[in-house]
Amino acid sequence: MKLQHLIPAAVAALALPGIAIAQDAVPGTDASSDSIFIFNSLLFLIGGFLVFWMAAGFAMLEAGLVRSKNVTTQLTKNIALFSLAAIMYWLIGYNVMYPLGSWSIGTDETGGYLGAFGVAILEAVGVTRDGADDYGYASTGSDFFFQLMFCATTASIVSGTLAERIKLWPFLIFTIVLTGLIYPIQASWKWGGGFLDTQWGFLDFAGSTVVHSVGGWAALAGALILGPRLGKYKDGRVNPMPGSNLALATLGTFILWLGWFGFNGGSQLAMGTVGDVSDVSRIFANTNMAAAAGAVTALILTQLVYGKVDLTMVLNGALAGLVSITAEPLTPSLFMALVIGGAGGAIVVFTVPMLDRMKIDDVVGAIPVHLIAGIWGTMAVLLTNSDATFMGQLMPIIIIGVFVFVVSSVVWFILKATVGIRVSEEAEVNGLDVSELGMEAYPEFSKG
Amino acid sequence: MKLQHLIPAAVAALALPGIAIAQDAVPGTDASSDSIFIFNSLLFLIGGFLVFWMAAGFAMLEAGLVRSKNVTTQLTKNIALFSLAAIMYWLIGYNVMYPLGSWSIGTDETGGYLGAFGVAILEAVGVTRDGADDYGYASTGSDFFFQLMFCATTASIVSGTLAERIKLWPFLIFTIVLTGLIYPIQASWKWGGGFLDTQWGFLDFAGSTVVHSVGGWAALAGALILGPRLGKYKDGRVNPMPGSNLALATLGTFILWLGWFGFNGGSQLAMGTVGDVSDVSRIFANTNMAAAAGAVTALILTQLVYGKVDLTMVLNGALAGLVSITAEPLTPSLFMALVIGGAGGAIVVFTVPMLDRMKIDDVVGAIPVHLIAGIWGTMAVLLTNSDATFMGQLMPIIIIGVFVFVVSSVVWFILKATVGIRVSEEAEVNGLDVSELGMEAYPEFSKG
Amino acid sequence: MKLQHLIPAAVAALALPGIAIAQDAVPGTDASSDSIFIFNSLLFLIGGFLVFWMAAGFAMLEAGLVRSKNVTTQLTKNIALFSLAAIMYWLIGYNVMYPLGSWSIGTDETGGYLGAFGVAILEAVGVTRDGADDYGYASTGSDFFFQLMFCATTASIVSGTLAERIKLWPFLIFTIVLTGLIYPIQASWKWGGGFLDTQWGFLDFAGSTVVHSVGGWAALAGALILGPRLGKYKDGRVNPMPGSNLALATLGTFILWLGWFGFNGGSQLAMGTVGDVSDVSRIFANTNMAAAAGAVTALILTQLVYGKVDLTMVLNGALAGLVSITAEPLTPSLFMALVIGGAGGAIVVFTVPMLDRMKIDDVVGAIPVHLIAGIWGTMAVLLTNSDATFMGQLMPIIIIGVFVFVVSSVVWFILKATVGIRVSEEAEVNGLDVSELGMEAYPEFSKG
Repeated sequence: MKLQHLIPAAVAALALPGIAIAQDAVPGTDASSDSIFIFNSLLFLIGGFLVFWMAAGFAMLEAGLVRSKNVTTQLTKNIALFSLAAIMYWLIGYNVMYPLGSWSIGTDETGGYLGAFGVAILEAVGVTRDGADDYGYASTGSDFFFQLMFCATTASIVSGTLAERIKLWPFLIFTIVLTGLIYPIQASWKWGGGFLDTQWGFLDFAGSTVVHSVGGWAALAGALILGPRLGKYKDGRVNPMPGSNLALATLGTFILWLGWFGFNGGSQLAMGTVGDVSDVSRIFANTNMAAAAGAVTALILTQLVYGKVDLTMVLNGALAGLVSITAEPLTPSLFMALVIGGAGGAIVVFTVPMLDRMKIDDVVGAIPVHLIAGIWGTMAVLLTNSDATFMGQLMPIIIIGVFVFVVSSVVWFILKATVGIRVSEEAEVNGLDVSELGMEAYPEFSKG
Repeated sequence: MKLQHLIPAAVAALALPGIAIAQDAVPGTDASSDSIFIFNSLLFLIGGFLVFWMAAGFAMLEAGLVRSKNVTTQLTKNIALFSLAAIMYWLIGYNVMYPLGSWSIGTDETGGYLGAFGVAILEAVGVTRDGADDYGYASTGSDFFFQLMFCATTASIVSGTLAERIKLWPFLIFTIVLTGLIYPIQASWKWGGGFLDTQWGFLDFAGSTVVHSVGGWAALAGALILGPRLGKYKDGRVNPMPGSNLALATLGTFILWLGWFGFNGGSQLAMGTVGDVSDVSRIFANTNMAAAAGAVTALILTQLVYGKVDLTMVLNGALAGLVSITAEPLTPSLFMALVIGGAGGAIVVFTVPMLDRMKIDDVVGAIPVHLIAGIWGTMAVLLTNSDATFMGQLMPIIIIGVFVFVVSSVVWFILKATVGIRVSEEAEVNGLDVSELGMEAYPEFSKG
Repeated sequence: MKLQHLIPAAVAALALPGIAIAQDAVPGTDASSDSIFIFNSLLFLIGGFLVFWMAAGFAMLEAGLVRSKNVTTQLTKNIALFSLAAIMYWLIGYNVMYPLGSWSIGTDETGGYLGAFGVAILEAVGVTRDGADDYGYASTGSDFFFQLMFCATTASIVSGTLAERIKLWPFLIFTIVLTGLIYPIQASWKWGGGFLDTQWGFLDFAGSTVVHSVGGWAALAGALILGPRLGKYKDGRVNPMPGSNLALATLGTFILWLGWFGFNGGSQLAMGTVGDVSDVSRIFANTNMAAAAGAVTALILTQLVYGKVDLTMVLNGALAGLVSITAEPLTPSLFMALVIGGAGGAIVVFTVPMLDRMKIDDVVGAIPVHLIAGIWGTMAVLLTNSDATFMGQLMPIIIIGVFVFVVSSVVWFILKATVGIRVSEEAEVNGLDVSELGMEAYPEFSKG
């Protein structure tokens, strides 16, 4: 159905400013090349600050889902990991991820494998058209700002899974490796024009695999090596350890949902033409629909399966819907976005208990949400984008998965063998806040 | 006073990039028609994500104003109602609200009464000028995204009033009817070009009536049929039941205030001309002023009337100021925005106790804020917009009020007569979180 | 290193919408003068709502760092001070700050000292190019909206320092003087083109001095006159009074960080050219880097100095990094942004205990963060901007410092001598929420 939209009367009553185009501008004229550059850069800036906001979302989600004795530690990890990611991405990550032909291993033609090394450099102050790094695209600063946030998001995913028993500094050292090397290397394979892009034709629009499953694999490796929390799996039973503040967890979910408009919408990478801005609009609408469908699916399924709605499942259902649509938020219709996101919500409901049966202790459910729904979303590209091929989606999922899981495991093992990654039993029982930081998040409130 | 603004020296010191216009661009040239399309779509995207954020605001406001034993339920309702609204607006609402001449009952000329049925369809990927649904306006995806958020806002209003005693699923079923039918039908009468627009010349810029009073009427119908909380009105006295977390309530208010810039500013529906972007700017400034005036009025009045400042009144005063300016945020001067918003704040201070005297139990004060201030704001259009007529404002308020109140009452009665809408006394006393969901929001903190 | 950015394959796969510029638009064409006006206004609107959001950040930060018995009061102060600032800046501040040649004392040429008096007036509805106050710049409404938020920020800084013992209404009266007179008068000296700008060549891009140190000086004056909290300094020891909710404090920090992109980025005051939008992009990237560096520096230093990471120091470290980069977020490279912000983080770690030794009781650490790091940031302009001179930075810091400290002290003394500024000992012990407002923030939770 084609909609020719009414100018609503609120506008009409005011001498129709909304249709000034018919009076003043020449119909069918391009935006100037300056305007295109500005629009594209602006998309990155808006998208970037929205994705930045996701760091707060992860912090609140995780602070709400851990027990109160570990909240300060979880908050500390989240602000520290974001800050370290910002520094590492500047120091190494950006040029490793976007080598622009200067591959350390490989070439653009044969397929790159390892990017360039060197700190990121912004364009000069008051740059002119001729001085711009890429006048046909956007300002380097806006691109760096936007891409940095994706790197930080990957690290945020890991912290939730490993909460309540990991030591602060070893976790932060892992974050440094993840954001400086692991994330940018594999991201270069796709978004930097490396071999997954050129040889496999891999499609991953905003990173169901490149961001979310990467965080998930790193978290899974950590969870296996770190082991479950004390008393989580005891005498063959799963001992529930409910989050201390569901209001914060819900706030975190809403923050992430909001940030995702920037995450997916900004990944269009351009909004200076009619086609681009309309595509960004499609992406916003589809992203919202997938999240809503994930939430509603989890709402209904928990009612049907458990007899009671489970709020944390609904929150994770929304997030899984978002992860699922991230590999391809553009080509689906709203109906297909509902299907793809809804399936993400179902994944959460069924895989959260599965992980528990495997005694993999994922405190916030990040593995179902980011890894499993991330794989689903990457394969679901096949449903709506005819450029995707089965092997072109599957093989990169596996290649990236093996790379991230193996390298992460090696790093976790080295950390375990040297500085140790797990707090003492006593510290875990007393809570990391008192034992590691000496600072409680809610010092005045008695624990029941 | 006419201001010709200095270029501040921060800019001047840097070779005056801010006045590049004088050097490069031809003064007095229109934005290209592509740019206008992009600017308008961008306004919807930014406005839309800001209004999305209001869903988080309502969730936090309500979670903060209910007692801790009902917080999980309130959070669940908020994320679920938003998600259901997103689906219903796609499935039915958008085309019912914007029939574009295809009225099921009525025509554009005689005045439409019931819109078109069918799911919302986005424009194709990479749409061209000729393929755009309305090249003179904005992308359909951006418009859908923006309008969807208004529909969801309407549903958010209802959940606060009915908190702490309504069953989850009947509430959600009501939400489905509200967002799929009640909201879009009455909204079509005005914003879809229906009979309130064509026959009455009704002016309601961003929805003091079409959104806020509609939520308020639906909430009022529910409150009357549902009855007050146990023990709220006992032996002729009003038993205060203070909210469990005023920090969250304050956060929610700030979120709503922020989102309202998108709500009112985006309702200009265009920013691709000098006039439009200047109008959006006026709206931002007026919206902020009305909120500030509402807060300050409630601050002063609660000090004078009760001898002590009441934070929840101040928060609701700010919100009432926002609702009051929503019917006409453009034409008022800053002084008139102060007057209109300040009156909204006064309404809250005087009508909250009035409702209690009538034994209408409105947990968060949504009826004073959204319904009564919404009516005030709609009539206040007469103060600053000469296109408004007394009957042209009053009659649509009444027509929409009767429609929404009657239909809502019917739906509430059917729900009451079939599945029941109220939890058992025992469940209410124990809290809905334990009895309905089996999940506490703050499980570790002892209750005093 | 010059980066010519790849068009990522997500775009390439979709018929290259991102490089439509090469196909349709004429390369090297200016944005139209209308577009420049729209872009600039849009920068103010986006920047403005982001800075608005900082009001919520301060509210959450402070609510998290005070004890639970004072949370309602702190929340009330924050929403009230913002609202009063909004009214005072309209009533007096805007024209005092931007006299546009109409100085009450001084002239643009000799240097202005006291601006114009009169309420702020917006442009007419649907203004045309010729009717616009400054067509070469931006809409007056957008500028007013943006600048108002800076005034409010200044007031927000004060409330944290004086928490837990100041009376509500005297604090609000001080806010009225601060936002109506103190802030705009000194801001006019620089940003209004007054004598600090013309005579001293003072550079303060977004307000390390004009906003942050001003708030800090006003807070310091208040803290000295008000005295420390009961029992804070006893028998020569500093008695720690930990904040009641570190999750809220962390949320507040993330909110402030987000808002700062608008604060610094918007202070470019233009984004309608290639140079301007690239500069805004640089500013976003540098601002983020400085915050990250401040956080990481505090993280490492608290580990080294105290043997344990201190989350509140990390949060304040990030904020101090932000304040430090605010005087010059444009000219630094990313490395220099790291240095400048990192030094800010170090300042926090070393000056917070210094203030305690001086028995200056600053509840949230606002004086180290906003005053001391603000001075550092203002002098650090010398490191990267060759237009800055040592005396041109130092003397305005001193002039503004003396002005604000003296006037603030006078106002605090008058308030102390007349209505009194400090609550009774009994009220302080019982908490301001019960004694001043009769409303607890967390009424249901037992205190341990």
